[in-house]
Amino acid sequence: MKVLVIGGDGYCGWATSLYLSSRGHDVTIVDSLGRRAWDREHGLDSLVPIASTRRRLDEWSRATGREIRFEHVDVTDYAAFSRVVCDTQPEAIVHFGQQRSAPFSMIDREHAVRTHLNNTLGNMNVLWALHEHAPQAHLVKLGTMGEYGTPNIDVEEGFITIEHNGRSDRLPFPKQPGSFYHLTKVSDSDQIYFTCRVWGLRATDLNQGIVYGTYTEQTALSAALANRYDYDHIFGTVLNRFCVQAALGHALTVYGSGGQTRSFLDIRDTVRCVEIALENPAREGEYRVFNQFTEMFSVEELAERVARVARERGMTCEIAHLTNPRTEREAHYYNCVNTNLRSLGLEPTLLSDETIAGLIALAGEHAARVDLRLIPPRIEWRPKAEAGQGAPAVA
Amino acid sequence: MKVLVIGGDGYCGWATSLYLSSRGHDVTIVDSLGRRAWDREHGLDSLVPIASTRRRLDEWSRATGREIRFEHVDVTDYAAFSRVVCDTQPEAIVHFGQQRSAPFSMIDREHAVRTHLNNTLGNMNVLWALHEHAPQAHLVKLGTMGEYGTPNIDVEEGFITIEHNGRSDRLPFPKQPGSFYHLTKVSDSDQIYFTCRVWGLRATDLNQGIVYGTYTEQTALSAALANRYDYDHIFGTVLNRFCVQAALGHALTVYGSGGQTRSFLDIRDTVRCVEIALENPAREGEYRVFNQFTEMFSVEELAERVARVARERGMTCEIAHLTNPRTEREAHYYNCVNTNLRSLGLEPTLLSDETIAGLIALAGEHAARVDLRLIPPRIEWRPKAEAGQGAPAVA
Repeated sequence: MKVLVIGGDGYCGWATSLYLSSRGHDVTIVDSLGRRAWDREHGLDSLVPIASTRRRLDEWSRATGREIRFEHVDVTDYAAFSRVVCDTQPEAIVHFGQQRSAPFSMIDREHAVRTHLNNTLGNMNVLWALHEHAPQAHLVKLGTMGEYGTPNIDVEEGFITIEHNGRSDRLPFPKQPGSFYHLTKVSDSDQIYFTCRVWGLRATDLNQGIVYGTYTEQTALSAALANRYDYDHIFGTVLNRFCVQAALGHALTVYGSGGQTRSFLDIRDTVRCVEIALENPAREGEYRVFNQFTEMFSVEELAERVARVARERGMTCEIAHLTNPRTEREAHYYNCVNTNLRSLGLEPTLLSDETIAGLIALAGEHAARVDLRLIPPRIEWRPKAEAGQGAPAVA
Repeated sequence: MKVLVIGGDGYCGWATSLYLSSRGHDVTIVDSLGRRAWDREHGLDSLVPIASTRRRLDEWSRATGREIRFEHVDVTDYAAFSRVVCDTQPEAIVHFGQQRSAPFSMIDREHAVRTHLNNTLGNMNVLWALHEHAPQAHLVKLGTMGEYGTPNIDVEEGFITIEHNGRSDRLPFPKQPGSFYHLTKVSDSDQIYFTCRVWGLRATDLNQGIVYGTYTEQTALSAALANRYDYDHIFGTVLNRFCVQAALGHALTVYGSGGQTRSFLDIRDTVRCVEIALENPAREGEYRVFNQFTEMFSVEELAERVARVARERGMTCEIAHLTNPRTEREAHYYNCVNTNLRSLGLEPTLLSDETIAGLIALAGEHAARVDLRLIPPRIEWRPKAEAGQGAPAVA
């Protein structure tokens, strides 16, 4: 299948591009390399060194004999992006090309606006390009489980049947996004649903949980194919960060009580979920949502799990609780449905001690590259001067 | 009360600014005059001539002895807008400053993106300016009943209690916006709700129905204070357009079967609703939604009503059904709650034959200014080449 992968140089995008190429698909990566620029701008770097885009694509070709094309194009540039769509006539577009960090979007107004512009204009351009140049192509869009927030009812997959005053309708599941980044994902979902209704586009919105791990069969083929491993306070996600802290003998830093519960999945499942969506495309005019995760954990549970694995391997590992920089519930109900992908064949890769030990070992190998100053949270949802004053921090 | 009225030179904004000034409030209008520019760009003009901003403000001062300040500032320019907020230290900000036409947003990609940028960046700037410079000020934001779409259940005011699998939560009412314009309003609502939760802002989101009429006590004081009267296919709303058609002896053009039912209110109630919101501000951290309308009508009912009023006054009046340019349900359940504003004291100005007759008479006075070519719909939600093919036009 001819597939465009927007954001194919990023964390999920790179693993997915290689996986789809290994499975015989004809992959073209479209990427602005914005993620690498944001790293430079904020003095961040992947713990595991990553090769330049050209270098890693050459290496893929050398290692497998397969070719992945690369278009250095920013999806917010409509003329350039629609030229790529016209030239390649894709059967599917996988859209990862967005600023994906909640803290990044909360730094200040400029970062909130930049996140919004990048994500929302990019999404609009994808929809217009499909409409004008490839109306039959299947859009597979990465959303996030964070769109839902933490409601006190079970989270269904995108839609919920509501009974009210003796009547009933199947309606979009209510969203309560928790950052300017999450707000862009909700806006994207609304736009995609609209264009499916009005223009007859076909789309799958993958509301993904928090991804962990860096290993996939393809990125492990050679060092030049390695995927990024973010551990910093802006792009680092919780499990990856805990493993770096464990490797260095530092306390695992839990924000607040750690009762925050979220959905998680291994990056090996991310790539498989995208494949499943591509193999089972949405119908013309259909907008469907798959909740893309395999397990739910609280932050405290994850910290205890990592600490146990580290200690079993002879390491010292403590857990520290920091003041939570985010405005979020720390004790809440959380139960999400994820049957759509399972019913289409996903076999979950559950979090194993071996995966955690592997991440700790990987962090250990690259320990000299860790900049400890990048780990403590410095971006606050509510500036300190205000915290604890006025309105309750949790709605 | 010191009030900034963003978009105070527009249709609802002008009437509201004069009304609030007449009630003793200290009003500053912030306006980019974008609406006048869009008229010029698309060859449109108000049926009733409107004076320049400076001229109408001078006239207000002359007629009443009251002064309304004017800042020619685009709310998407953060530096300029936040300077106004710092200088005026408003107790409330009323935000009308948005591109408000659904057809305008559906013309092409450029208009969709322009609508999005204008509305969403403007909204983000208002929120950041409140956060950084006036955190205690009350935001009164104009939303639209169109955010909800036409669900098969009663539409509550912003939130709904959902029972699901034995649990319950009060959650944002699901939205199904029907154009790129409506999508911006939904995104605004999500952003405002978020900043109330996280920053403790106080906000009232007025989900307004379709406004009709041009008469308010203040705009009627002199011709130089007249409000705009849009009848064209881009900015004209249904009742105003029917009255122009009746005045000219043209058939009233109903889109499709006319079974589309919507919420309506008289512009005299718009100004009163804003005053009610200002007099009863949201609490710190509170995001509340008022459904701002007084009556519900189907398009066909409105056409029949206008036709009857015209015929009773000796005019010939037919009703014509055009192919619907929009993608929308034409037969659907529609019932919306509007108790919040009523309980705070709104006395509805229901649609009367006199109001309709007055609009027809006003249109008749200015008949020589009507450009008939501007009335038929030319902007289609789904281009003709596609209509009737593929996916059903209605989800």
